[in-house]
Amino acid sequence: MRAAVYHGPGDVRVEEVPDPELEAPTDAIVRITHTAVCGSDLWFYRGESDYPAGGRVGHEPMGVVEAVGDDVTSLEPGDRVLSPFSISCGECEFCRKGLYTSCTADESWGGENTGAQGEKVRAPHADGTLVRVPDRYADDEDVLESLLPLTDVMCTGHHAAVSAGVDAGDTAIVVGDGAVGLCGVLAASRLGAERVVAMGHHEDRLEIAREFGATDVIAARGEDAVEEAIELTDGGANHVLECVGAESSMETAAEVARPGGTVGYVGVPQGVETTGFLDTMFRKNVGLEGGVAPVRKYVDDLMADVLQGTLDPSPVFTKTVDLDGVPDGYAAMDERDAVKVMVKLDD
Amino acid sequence: MRAAVYHGPGDVRVEEVPDPELEAPTDAIVRITHTAVCGSDLWFYRGESDYPAGGRVGHEPMGVVEAVGDDVTSLEPGDRVLSPFSISCGECEFCRKGLYTSCTADESWGGENTGAQGEKVRAPHADGTLVRVPDRYADDEDVLESLLPLTDVMCTGHHAAVSAGVDAGDTAIVVGDGAVGLCGVLAASRLGAERVVAMGHHEDRLEIAREFGATDVIAARGEDAVEEAIELTDGGANHVLECVGAESSMETAAEVARPGGTVGYVGVPQGVETTGFLDTMFRKNVGLEGGVAPVRKYVDDLMADVLQGTLDPSPVFTKTVDLDGVPDGYAAMDERDAVKVMVKLDD
Repeated sequence: MRAAVYHGPGDVRVEEVPDPELEAPTDAIVRITHTAVCGSDLWFYRGESDYPAGGRVGHEPMGVVEAVGDDVTSLEPGDRVLSPFSISCGECEFCRKGLYTSCTADESWGGENTGAQGEKVRAPHADGTLVRVPDRYADDEDVLESLLPLTDVMCTGHHAAVSAGVDAGDTAIVVGDGAVGLCGVLAASRLGAERVVAMGHHEDRLEIAREFGATDVIAARGEDAVEEAIELTDGGANHVLECVGAESSMETAAEVARPGGTVGYVGVPQGVETTGFLDTMFRKNVGLEGGVAPVRKYVDDLMADVLQGTLDPSPVFTKTVDLDGVPDGYAAMDERDAVKVMVKLDD
Repeated sequence: MRAAVYHGPGDVRVEEVPDPELEAPTDAIVRITHTAVCGSDLWFYRGESDYPAGGRVGHEPMGVVEAVGDDVTSLEPGDRVLSPFSISCGECEFCRKGLYTSCTADESWGGENTGAQGEKVRAPHADGTLVRVPDRYADDEDVLESLLPLTDVMCTGHHAAVSAGVDAGDTAIVVGDGAVGLCGVLAASRLGAERVVAMGHHEDRLEIAREFGATDVIAARGEDAVEEAIELTDGGANHVLECVGAESSMETAAEVARPGGTVGYVGVPQGVETTGFLDTMFRKNVGLEGGVAPVRKYVDDLMADVLQGTLDPSPVFTKTVDLDGVPDGYAAMDERDAVKVMVKLDD
């Protein structure tokens, strides 16, 4: 079969690889129909994080079950499934309490034969990891494209909103206009926030933020942006969604938080080398909640909303490619030509 | 009158200064009977933070009201009072929600005529700032000495425990065996924690931790200490009290937190220059709550416990001096000869 393979910074190729096989009785084999390129894939693509050369890539799989191991009880061949970006056994202490990202099985997509950007993938701990799409929606292309962001960015934006404590009537500020930030706006609106201020640097993305429910957008940078946010909210917001993970965005989030408020952070910290945000938060008793998003915890609720037509994060996909187009997809994300790239394989 | 004045690193002198006077109708003048030297006083004493030469020092006043301004309604001359280390108007948005440390009046002890280490002090916003000791206990020396830590360290330790979410039956780890850490142990025990693990480096202080309710103490350093804490708690605690504010203690707190847990931090960040703690917390979805402690929010509840004899943080005072002994008090704290120094003035 064919799959995307990492060869070095800027070098992802689609090439022939061995078909995956069931290795454990809890495995499933999924034929991929849809997947995506993630902002976090850019770290290795840009050489900002280590990744083994020759390693398979992709962690947002959706497809059709082809085979299941003997111990898999909740899935059958033919089921349409999607998977969170993290693998979870579903049975350990942390899975039971909904913190699937701390699953003691400690497995992840990528590597030898579990990359999602390919024709097929081996899904470990299939019962705990894969989420079945109800049969009546299983072949509805519009629904599937709206569900695909639930594998990562939509649930991650939602985790930011939940971690920041957003509730009906609240004012929230979302820092970042990438796919996660935009989904954070959507999530905050869905949770009933009355005012959602989106902070970013790209007019086209802030336009999507407006579609997703942002009542105000701030395109300024640095201190100007902070001043504008504080003025708009008469002193800062009690709920701030940090959706980038950079040093400057952590500082912005801390600064625009109202004293006693909470920053929900979901952007993996990258290059945060100073702790000014900590001093700012300490002085104001601003809490920092969140972390790597336990997608599996949220996906059922969010799927229900997508299926009933009240939630549609698919506008974050501003470019679609086929499997051979995966390298172009990486390049488009790297050059910020695309917010997020969908990969559609022949069904 | 006489008061402690800062002249430079290592140089605090008790000298003649002008008597304080009422300056605003909301002021009170308090004759100090008891006060203390704080771990945070050591920052300027050690030259680690700026402080104006010639500035008055001390922020933990207890004494007797001598005079009140025309607008002060809750206090009369003769009342025994104590004050949180922060000044609060009692009326702004943040005071109303209990976040007294974010009071919009933005005033603090210290400086021209409001230092607590002296014979008298001018108390701004007296109604909002000062806490009256009920008359029947107002001259009970044992009670007063037990109440004195409520001006700062006891309420700060309590803030760590509350911020970390400690509740009945919980397991808590307290990082730090200074006065705040010891009070954190006491607070966690008071809140019903079933297991309280105290981490520190001084056997004599850990002995006080045991008196205060620690069920386990860890005197090891670095990775050994972390391993011991994780082993003792079978994978880390859901509630961690960070009571130091140093880079190493932030890292320790993050490492000994159980995935999904919360670190309550109350040690003012000092020299935290790397963000390893952030990566650790992010990966495990460990929240960071707390900040500068809103003492005024907690002091009534804790005072009630002291007055009924169920709470006594006074063992943190391992040395007592008179006003002339204040410089010795600083030196003793600086050399770690004393956990915390009480200053008793002639009544």
